[in-house]
Amino acid sequence: MGQILNRHAMDVSLALTRHGFPIYHHTAVGDNEGRILDVLSIAVKRSNVVIVTGGLGPTDDDLTKECVAKFLDRRLIMDEVALQTLNEYFAHRGREMPEANRKQALCIEGGQLLPNPNGTAPGQYVYDDVRAVHFFLLPGPPLEMNPMLENEVLPKLGILFPHSGVLISRVIHLCGIGESDVDAKIKDVTTSSNPTVAPLAKEGEMLLRITASAPDAQAARVLLAPVEDRIRAEFASYVYGVDDESLVSVVGDILTGKNQSLSVAESCTGGLLSSMITAVPGSSTYYKGGVVAYHNDAKEKFLGVKRESLEEHGAVSQEVAIEMAEGAREAFAADYAISLTGVAGPTGGTELKPVGLVYGAIADGSTTECFRLQYHGSREQIRIRASKHMLWRLWSRIR
Amino acid sequence: MGQILNRHAMDVSLALTRHGFPIYHHTAVGDNEGRILDVLSIAVKRSNVVIVTGGLGPTDDDLTKECVAKFLDRRLIMDEVALQTLNEYFAHRGREMPEANRKQALCIEGGQLLPNPNGTAPGQYVYDDVRAVHFFLLPGPPLEMNPMLENEVLPKLGILFPHSGVLISRVIHLCGIGESDVDAKIKDVTTSSNPTVAPLAKEGEMLLRITASAPDAQAARVLLAPVEDRIRAEFASYVYGVDDESLVSVVGDILTGKNQSLSVAESCTGGLLSSMITAVPGSSTYYKGGVVAYHNDAKEKFLGVKRESLEEHGAVSQEVAIEMAEGAREAFAADYAISLTGVAGPTGGTELKPVGLVYGAIADGSTTECFRLQYHGSREQIRIRASKHMLWRLWSRIR
Repeated sequence: MGQILNRHAMDVSLALTRHGFPIYHHTAVGDNEGRILDVLSIAVKRSNVVIVTGGLGPTDDDLTKECVAKFLDRRLIMDEVALQTLNEYFAHRGREMPEANRKQALCIEGGQLLPNPNGTAPGQYVYDDVRAVHFFLLPGPPLEMNPMLENEVLPKLGILFPHSGVLISRVIHLCGIGESDVDAKIKDVTTSSNPTVAPLAKEGEMLLRITASAPDAQAARVLLAPVEDRIRAEFASYVYGVDDESLVSVVGDILTGKNQSLSVAESCTGGLLSSMITAVPGSSTYYKGGVVAYHNDAKEKFLGVKRESLEEHGAVSQEVAIEMAEGAREAFAADYAISLTGVAGPTGGTELKPVGLVYGAIADGSTTECFRLQYHGSREQIRIRASKHMLWRLWSRIR
Repeated sequence: MGQILNRHAMDVSLALTRHGFPIYHHTAVGDNEGRILDVLSIAVKRSNVVIVTGGLGPTDDDLTKECVAKFLDRRLIMDEVALQTLNEYFAHRGREMPEANRKQALCIEGGQLLPNPNGTAPGQYVYDDVRAVHFFLLPGPPLEMNPMLENEVLPKLGILFPHSGVLISRVIHLCGIGESDVDAKIKDVTTSSNPTVAPLAKEGEMLLRITASAPDAQAARVLLAPVEDRIRAEFASYVYGVDDESLVSVVGDILTGKNQSLSVAESCTGGLLSSMITAVPGSSTYYKGGVVAYHNDAKEKFLGVKRESLEEHGAVSQEVAIEMAEGAREAFAADYAISLTGVAGPTGGTELKPVGLVYGAIADGSTTECFRLQYHGSREQIRIRASKHMLWRLWSRIR
């Protein structure tokens, strides 16, 4: 019905492609036995691995396991260990297991359940020896599906198809520079075919994925290295990390290594920057905390912003951004502080201070730098871009 | 390769469903002639309308029109009017039309081009009289595809299938109750076929989608109403909103209506709750701000949490949650305050205070309620669930 964006297709494709398994078909179908059986029979004719997501829940419209069993003409057998795990899952929460959840412990004859540490629905692996097709059934919630894909499916595929060659990627993360500026300067590598260099869109930053195809990992890395060097040489001040690194992780690693600390003062970003920082485990070693000073009173009270600065220059101004950063640094007794104040929109803009205008400052006790940023886009885009930009500015300062 | 989210499937499905045309299959395939022909031959066997998006551009990897023509065994004929329009499009921009764009004016024999006021690629309609299937080919850019869907495809479908009626949905939002508990109590409505009731998963809350099929919108609403009433009666304390409403929007609407204000004090959620609140435009009318008191010093300094409470009970305790809420309420001079302190993990848990243990409190100046929550899951899940749970608790209090 179009109410949910098919994020599964993206996540599964990204993960498998990264490991060298090409995906040729995405198919989405509703909770209807006849149509599910139809798409299964189409899938097995054209693919030797079929990954099915969703429909492993406890309710009657969760049909995936039942349909695959029927398609393979196999029974569903109660897995006593999985049932025990489910019982413990509920007991652990001080509840009795609802009768409906029992069916989540059913396993297709000849298959095996895949553990789900993040929910009640185990996944399933089953091999159809008649058609030589491997089935993986994964739960629908992304926070359950993605870990299972990573921890169960990919290792298993690596064993099942050991000689598929490898596609190895290296993702270079840049911030503070736009896609067209990047693209114009590295045409020599973006037009090559092995390795390929593809820009990936990510809000507030830019990723360049270099992908090399080779018989083995080492040969692929030999192909990757000179292209990475080329990009790093061209964009030295913008390349802040690679692969799984994030602005928060690189900033956190540097601060932790130097035994230094950070605090933040947010207005327009409303806690987003703080939430990004604390989303990474271990952030408490360097992050002291933050103030979301949404109301002007809070800017004065918690951050020592002067009333005259607010009255004279307004909350969205260089003066207030600087006072917020200095105030947050002092109040939290931190080595560094970042502040953000701006007009996130969609309303509230004026001719002098349009939607998307953001002032960000970084204080370190001796100097305070302030940046005037102007973004175009939605409230969410403005908040994300401004938060990431200031993390990048801090990284530039402390790297 | 998973680099682009399939927003087309969503947009087309939403538009067609709203007009009473059920969509049974989504298929995505790359720019490969063989695979495109294969999916076309599957599609015509199961559907009487096939909508294809993308692949109408000027470059060599744009294959849609060519493949459909080949599939139907028809020629591509230059449409002189469309060619003229294309020439004018470029002339208007002071440019000469590149040779490559000529092919965008080709029309499948017996078909008709659909005008594209927003780009260079006209759409196509063609009827396959052998298989009795209607094809619509639409350009890929959403800002070209969606207007063409609305202005060309839907009116044409209305003429081709005049009596198809409407499908109308209503989404009921619940929080504080799990999927299996909900399902067990409303089997009478979840097993009915019109309206249908389907649970939708969403982190930290639960959605029930009621969908009625009827000849017109009013008749559909008459079918929906009793089912919605039944669900509301059964889960009165959990149903906080419908359709586009969110926990933040309903809490915000009530507080704004009463001219009351809110502040928050966060430890384990690290700014996430504040960021959720401020993500909604207009939150500044009731939201005063928050403190992310990650370090214990910040809990004392900004929120007046007693050192003895921290030493005696630890930061993750009922006592500290209560003092945080009361402190945040007072410091921001707000009518209500929410606090959250817990162990978000993945490390840092102990036997007495395991990962996922969260204390949340709500202070209103006269009483302070504290809730002991225990979650299982990733750091992200724990943070989202705890934040939403406390919004739901506040809603329960002020509704």
